[in-house]
Amino acid sequence: MEDLIKVKNQIKVFVQDCNDKKSLELFDLLPEGKMLRSKLILKIAGVSAESIKLCAVVEMIHAASLLHDDVIDEAHTRRGKPSINALYDNKTAIMFGDILYSRAFTQLSQMDKNIAYTISNAVTLLSIGEMLDVELTKSFNSSYDKYLDMIYKKTASLIEASAKAAAILSGKDQEAFALYGKNLGLAFQMVDDILDITQDSQTLGKPAMLDFVEGKVTIPYLLLYEKLEEKQKLESLYKKELSDEESSWIKEQMQSSKALQQSIKLAQKLGDEAIEAIKPYKNSDLENIMNAMIQREF
Amino acid sequence: MEDLIKVKNQIKVFVQDCNDKKSLELFDLLPEGKMLRSKLILKIAGVSAESIKLCAVVEMIHAASLLHDDVIDEAHTRRGKPSINALYDNKTAIMFGDILYSRAFTQLSQMDKNIAYTISNAVTLLSIGEMLDVELTKSFNSSYDKYLDMIYKKTASLIEASAKAAAILSGKDQEAFALYGKNLGLAFQMVDDILDITQDSQTLGKPAMLDFVEGKVTIPYLLLYEKLEEKQKLESLYKKELSDEESSWIKEQMQSSKALQQSIKLAQKLGDEAIEAIKPYKNSDLENIMNAMIQREF
Repeated sequence: MEDLIKVKNQIKVFVQDCNDKKSLELFDLLPEGKMLRSKLILKIAGVSAESIKLCAVVEMIHAASLLHDDVIDEAHTRRGKPSINALYDNKTAIMFGDILYSRAFTQLSQMDKNIAYTISNAVTLLSIGEMLDVELTKSFNSSYDKYLDMIYKKTASLIEASAKAAAILSGKDQEAFALYGKNLGLAFQMVDDILDITQDSQTLGKPAMLDFVEGKVTIPYLLLYEKLEEKQKLESLYKKELSDEESSWIKEQMQSSKALQQSIKLAQKLGDEAIEAIKPYKNSDLENIMNAMIQREF
Repeated sequence: MEDLIKVKNQIKVFVQDCNDKKSLELFDLLPEGKMLRSKLILKIAGVSAESIKLCAVVEMIHAASLLHDDVIDEAHTRRGKPSINALYDNKTAIMFGDILYSRAFTQLSQMDKNIAYTISNAVTLLSIGEMLDVELTKSFNSSYDKYLDMIYKKTASLIEASAKAAAILSGKDQEAFALYGKNLGLAFQMVDDILDITQDSQTLGKPAMLDFVEGKVTIPYLLLYEKLEEKQKLESLYKKELSDEESSWIKEQMQSSKALQQSIKLAQKLGDEAIEAIKPYKNSDLENIMNAMIQREF
């Protein structure tokens, strides 16, 4: 997509403005992402110098958060390429993250105040979401509200802010597009949670059923736990390496209790709500993005 | 100082706005600093709701940079109290740093655009300065320009930005106060570099002559190296645990070559230049801050 190349060039210009050789060197090593947030912004606000700048700012913030994530998770790869912390060290990854964050905020400070507030506030939510995520893996969490609050902050808040900022930029209904972005983010996370159970490790590119081992009680597990009579059995498998037998038991219970099916329905409901909210704009691209995202595995 | 309590309360309000229990818990564990930047802002702009907010923003940014610093340096204490990374873990310290940064930027986004640009741009410089600092400790650096560029970015840029923003806020000469802040920061770092050599470990609260062992060729070492005939001898001691004899040799050379004396003069020259720049404002407090800072050890 030609417009995404414009966004990449804009990010490069913003990084070049730092006048720092090392920053440019690091920038060239960043793995390319799907640029979901930019696609969303451009579909809402159209392509203009201002919307390209907004995309660049959001992508820099997203990249910064991933740099810090990889330090925290001691991840050695990101999208199949070696991570900055693996290629260099933690100091470099943390500081380059701070450079990208602050360059993004510096650019934001020159934009519309409402846009600047919306995006920078989402970064606070994003960081709180990361902390909540860790908190929730400490012991078996059976609270749906806590789970929803966490995935809203960690995954949905920056997507919501991107959609809202794009609506502000193009004079469209802020609340409607904010809802669309929020629900896209929430549904995206839920589908990810479902895929962890339904897909094999080859398709996922990581071990299957890893979430529960890592202490994450995701939406299908929450719904299963609610319905299950053998609650203690599920709890006893929490944060454990699962035998084939145990994995199969969980999958069977997910099917028979309809926890999986209900999780899919929940994601679909969020998607329908989002599409309904922006209906007056007759934006079929956004409808397709939502539907494709939810149906990506079934 | 009563006004600094107002700043602390303002920071707390900004953190409370996050609606996150853990953030408040972490905030209460942050060690108290000298709040140099706030003192500077209040001396320039006077006390008002706006200047207190500006102070709070700058202190949050400073605290965030220290949180990330402590992770990077694996520091277990900060100002005599256990650091957040020691009390919790790296993840918590990195994320709480990101929370403080983004809350500060969110507040900045609602202030004057020139102020927001000045402060957020300084955060980029600060982060680049941290990376340069690491680069310069990899091998013996004999470039005065590289040293000056690094301490400007790492130490002086946020002080410069604070003074400039305070001048913008109160309608004073931006360039004059920016110069004052920049030179205060540079001189502060130089005096620190000198104290590392002239003070004993008890007074410093850390091992004396640590900079050179850690690979930092600071201003007295740069000037000594320039004058020294036995350049190779100094190079051979670089990044080594020093014997008493070797420490004494360095100190003697620092005296006989007048490298120390010249370093002090350099700091004093920066101070004089700064005081001259803001002379029209007859601000004796700022003159005293500069003089006390430079004379803090001699």
